[in-house]
Amino acid sequence: MALIVTGTIGIDTVVTPTSSAEKILGGSATYFSVAASFFGKVRLVAAVGGDFPPSFAKFLKGYKAIDTRGLEVRPNSKTFAWGGKYREDMNSRDTLFTELGVLAEAPPVVPGTFADSKFVFLANTHPGVQAQLLSSFPKRTLAVADTMDLWINTARKELEALLRQIDGLVLNYDEAELFTGKKNPVTAARHILNDFGGAKGSKKGLKFVVVKKGEHGSLIIHHDGIAALPAYPAEKVVDPTGAGDTFAGGLMGYLASKGARTPTKLDTLRKAAAMGTVMASFNIEAFSLDRLKTLKKAEIAKRSKQFAKMINV
Amino acid sequence: MALIVTGTIGIDTVVTPTSSAEKILGGSATYFSVAASFFGKVRLVAAVGGDFPPSFAKFLKGYKAIDTRGLEVRPNSKTFAWGGKYREDMNSRDTLFTELGVLAEAPPVVPGTFADSKFVFLANTHPGVQAQLLSSFPKRTLAVADTMDLWINTARKELEALLRQIDGLVLNYDEAELFTGKKNPVTAARHILNDFGGAKGSKKGLKFVVVKKGEHGSLIIHHDGIAALPAYPAEKVVDPTGAGDTFAGGLMGYLASKGARTPTKLDTLRKAAAMGTVMASFNIEAFSLDRLKTLKKAEIAKRSKQFAKMINV
Repeated sequence: MALIVTGTIGIDTVVTPTSSAEKILGGSATYFSVAASFFGKVRLVAAVGGDFPPSFAKFLKGYKAIDTRGLEVRPNSKTFAWGGKYREDMNSRDTLFTELGVLAEAPPVVPGTFADSKFVFLANTHPGVQAQLLSSFPKRTLAVADTMDLWINTARKELEALLRQIDGLVLNYDEAELFTGKKNPVTAARHILNDFGGAKGSKKGLKFVVVKKGEHGSLIIHHDGIAALPAYPAEKVVDPTGAGDTFAGGLMGYLASKGARTPTKLDTLRKAAAMGTVMASFNIEAFSLDRLKTLKKAEIAKRSKQFAKMINV
Repeated sequence: MALIVTGTIGIDTVVTPTSSAEKILGGSATYFSVAASFFGKVRLVAAVGGDFPPSFAKFLKGYKAIDTRGLEVRPNSKTFAWGGKYREDMNSRDTLFTELGVLAEAPPVVPGTFADSKFVFLANTHPGVQAQLLSSFPKRTLAVADTMDLWINTARKELEALLRQIDGLVLNYDEAELFTGKKNPVTAARHILNDFGGAKGSKKGLKFVVVKKGEHGSLIIHHDGIAALPAYPAEKVVDPTGAGDTFAGGLMGYLASKGARTPTKLDTLRKAAAMGTVMASFNIEAFSLDRLKTLKKAEIAKRSKQFAKMINV
């Protein structure tokens, strides 16, 4: 079933304790759509500036499974650019610079042909913009959004309004803590679910919260219970940038590929999160999309099987 | 099959951000044996001083499944006492005081009737003492040891000698990092396994390393692969003291109860570690042994089933 992502395409500069890479392709929608493309078609909605390198555009358009009709080029604007530096533990990072470019302008235009999208992922941006984009998909069966500390701090009301309109929220543990003031990831997510979820069994309101814990895995807090997954025990960590968006791409790609009528069943979500975990584990092995670029479906199937064997009891 | 633990019995003082408890029963052998007692008989070898409260002795002797003939009372000595204060995150702690008492004297005497023990757990103490205790169990099928930063720093040679005589090592992630200088838990454990493990298929040498990551779960690095388990997603964390020893007690108790001829099979170890995880999740719900005291087998079975449902994909 038709999957769509709205988000950013960026030009990243990444510094790690042992290496660095300048002006590489990044952005939430980029990582998401490439990860999701392994599971079926994905529609991409994002804006770039006139400075967007033709090689990057060619790369994205080279994916048959990515529908780039929603890739809007604004000749007189600049592409979003971001620089980040990872600390020794590779688990936390400091922002070196942010040049908003097109992100400071109007949100990308959603092509009319995308209006029938069923599975919607609103990658991290201002929650007001996310809500506006969401309204373009009246036939959706599942809407999931990501958010970040900036919006929790500066646009809380809009974020709360958004949470009442979506089915699932994906956020980092420290963001869940910031949002709720609760130190425990389960307690924090449960608070969000209780405050913005409909009654159990109701179709309205938030149905699940995914708490991402980076190298420590993820949790799904759901009306029917909890799912807990470790990260894939990776030894090769070159660049964690985009891991969260790749996780979301794997999760949503899997759900859309199943075409499940009830994609919010906890059992289904747990399997989907495992797929997201596997996709993220590949992504961190290289800068930018370099690992996803060469990834084969057989490698995904193999690692998924390995991962299941590592965790199933 | 006969399970034995050698370790400490202590009188603890624990301070957490929200509460505290003074002069409570603690010690590695205490937590281990009470946890293991849910799975079958366990032999306890540890020394206490003349100051050991009769109520504590009565408590331990009250367990039919705990064979306390190895509980040595030294009337003129003092019981090991330890005080610790947990930081805000409940994941790290500072030592307030350590009064070694009997721990500064000769190791506890192993009763001759315990010589036929098959499953041996050497709880954390000086590796030279652990090796000496190990030699009391010539008929062992499985020997597992715990260690800590103190011995890695001060008795490395003895620790290395011990590692060549045991089957499994259990240690915290930061200890694995300290021991190997490797920042990645998988890489660190793999280095220990490679340096002290026999060849694949060989009966000699270390067969597995369990890396404990506290609230982030555990990993088993094994010649045949890796197991990765999240912690049980607990919301009620009153006192993490003894969680590692309770984990080990559940793990070893499970293995001994299965009486497996090949207890070092990765599949078996992963199930055992899941049982350890569940036991630890109960222990942290109260100070000292207060939760394990009231715990019922049916509660363990229920939570084990829940945990499997949370993680299986």
